[in-house]
Amino acid sequence: MRDVAVIGASMSKFGQREAWLQELLAQAGTACLRDGNVDPEEIEHLYVSNMASGEFEGQTGASNALAHDIGVLPAFTQRVDQTSSSGGAGIYTAWQSIASGTSDMTLLVGGEKMTHRSTSETTDIIASVTHPVEYKHGVTLPSFAGLTARLYLDTYDAPRESLATVAVKNHRNGVDNPHAQFRKEVDTETVLNSPIVADPLRLYDFCPITDGSSALLFCPLEDAAQYTEDYVSIAGIGGATDTHVVHERTDPTTMGGVVESGQQAYEMSDYYPEDIDVAELHDMFTILEFLQSEGLGFFDPGQAWKATQNGETASDGQLPINTSGGLKSKGHPLGATGVAQGYEIYKQLIDDAGPRQVEADVGLACNVGGFGNCVTTVIMEDER
Amino acid sequence: MRDVAVIGASMSKFGQREAWLQELLAQAGTACLRDGNVDPEEIEHLYVSNMASGEFEGQTGASNALAHDIGVLPAFTQRVDQTSSSGGAGIYTAWQSIASGTSDMTLLVGGEKMTHRSTSETTDIIASVTHPVEYKHGVTLPSFAGLTARLYLDTYDAPRESLATVAVKNHRNGVDNPHAQFRKEVDTETVLNSPIVADPLRLYDFCPITDGSSALLFCPLEDAAQYTEDYVSIAGIGGATDTHVVHERTDPTTMGGVVESGQQAYEMSDYYPEDIDVAELHDMFTILEFLQSEGLGFFDPGQAWKATQNGETASDGQLPINTSGGLKSKGHPLGATGVAQGYEIYKQLIDDAGPRQVEADVGLACNVGGFGNCVTTVIMEDER
Repeated sequence: MRDVAVIGASMSKFGQREAWLQELLAQAGTACLRDGNVDPEEIEHLYVSNMASGEFEGQTGASNALAHDIGVLPAFTQRVDQTSSSGGAGIYTAWQSIASGTSDMTLLVGGEKMTHRSTSETTDIIASVTHPVEYKHGVTLPSFAGLTARLYLDTYDAPRESLATVAVKNHRNGVDNPHAQFRKEVDTETVLNSPIVADPLRLYDFCPITDGSSALLFCPLEDAAQYTEDYVSIAGIGGATDTHVVHERTDPTTMGGVVESGQQAYEMSDYYPEDIDVAELHDMFTILEFLQSEGLGFFDPGQAWKATQNGETASDGQLPINTSGGLKSKGHPLGATGVAQGYEIYKQLIDDAGPRQVEADVGLACNVGGFGNCVTTVIMEDER
Repeated sequence: MRDVAVIGASMSKFGQREAWLQELLAQAGTACLRDGNVDPEEIEHLYVSNMASGEFEGQTGASNALAHDIGVLPAFTQRVDQTSSSGGAGIYTAWQSIASGTSDMTLLVGGEKMTHRSTSETTDIIASVTHPVEYKHGVTLPSFAGLTARLYLDTYDAPRESLATVAVKNHRNGVDNPHAQFRKEVDTETVLNSPIVADPLRLYDFCPITDGSSALLFCPLEDAAQYTEDYVSIAGIGGATDTHVVHERTDPTTMGGVVESGQQAYEMSDYYPEDIDVAELHDMFTILEFLQSEGLGFFDPGQAWKATQNGETASDGQLPINTSGGLKSKGHPLGATGVAQGYEIYKQLIDDAGPRQVEADVGLACNVGGFGNCVTTVIMEDER
């Protein structure tokens, strides 16, 4: 298996965009080729991470259209869908294409266009990932988040305020991210007084609905220096699945897919939780940041809320989490999110994160689909 | 790169099915595990080829649901979408997962549930693969097929009847396929007198709308004999893309993706057109069988119609094409089709094709998405 490098990255502005998906994908794709100093003709594989362009826009065949639009024909191309973790699954597939020796240059572009639909339509499209029986009984993803948050607070005697800390921290980080949807700080009081969505979670515990795109460029590690000085390696990667029916899980505060994919990535990289310098976690709901940082072994079960309250996961803490602002303030264009997590880790490792810069040689990104149904965890390492 | 074997295959009945996609996928998946003598726990990667379960059924996350349903958790899983060539792209991805060393046992399941929607709704969903400008001007896939058929007939001075020969041959083959949607012969007159859809093509020049599923099981070639005596190898594989906008192609009677993916597969396998003993081509429209058999080098440009009329591609001919009945009589459940092509080639190579059996050591399958927008060509070889 060949070692794999990331040699370029790009991100379009996340938020409400006056552009269709194909335009968003082309923006990120073209910018990424430029960033990696790679000509379109060099691309052998093109993967597009996208959950639902057919449902949102009535347009399918996104990968073929993008291949045409950015001039990478006749590259092999396909859409990778793993619902809201399509971006992470795209990293997995792109990595596999280089590792296998099938492709010597792979471009991954993730994107979603969502804000032109009403909130109820969008919620309906996203809810289609859950089990139809759970969904028909009204248990959507926000409901699961509320139930799980309640269970976590009760089990670990954590105060409601601790969840708000995640929102406050990630909004703080988002201020420094020019691509973020929301670049404004919020205080604990604002979070705690925002309207209830799924008790105990309130509006500010949720990520917004977002349009956006992001891209990463992969090649064999041994070729990376030909293109750029700024490259990182994929040190480890893992992908795993948990039950489709959430109520079948023994302990809903443990995300099996996070634990399993993390273990795979740790084993492959020979880096372990204590070696990680910076992490991007999938904070679609504030509670998820606790569950993932515990599932990945950053903190013992029931300890993440304390660590967060103590500032350990802030940008100046021991393990900065979601320096990008996370899904919470950066936004969550489904198919783009996992790719954008990779973008942030790449930028942090090559010391190009501007005002968000932290000291980091090894970074981790964890992208979650459904309510922990599918998870990809990737560990990147500075190779300069 | 490791050599890859196919050690099992399955297919559910194609046609109008009283079952949702998840049930169809589970049927094929479970049957395939049984066919390959593999326990669910051994599956490390699960790929689901499906174009549009969200659009057809309002249900997404199909790969996670299937992983749960057939008991392969916590396998890495994702949906592979390349529109109507999703099955071929699934074979490519499954092959890549074994070749790379990432997975030691990969299950691929393709499926689509379509017949519960009206023909106009279905046509609308399928038309979403074309370029929006072409589509809005009324140029859907059947229109492209009609225009291209007219051009082919004019360019090569071929009679209208030659197209009918494809339908007659494939319907004849379908009679012997217990999984086929239509198991009845048609005569030339019936084809030529059927209602016009897109001149010069008539109803019997088109494949039907179909529900169904199919699966294939992959492992390293060196491990195959542990599981079964009946295994074949992936001798060569190629994937390529052509323009999204069809009118930008220099010569519409040449499918660039077919030519390119075929060349890749030939080069990798070191088998060439004259070495192929049996082939499954993507005859969504009769004209496509001519274009593909020429693009793959079985016949010179403009010669396929003569070869077909002379019986060279019939089951007792020199190069049997679509012994399964092809999309024409077997049916075309989008995501299942490429996988089912692989099923037929596998069955032919292990001498388990029943009354359809031909003599074959090397077989080829070519799966086409859009109007030649994305193509995967795979060459399999009997390894017993």
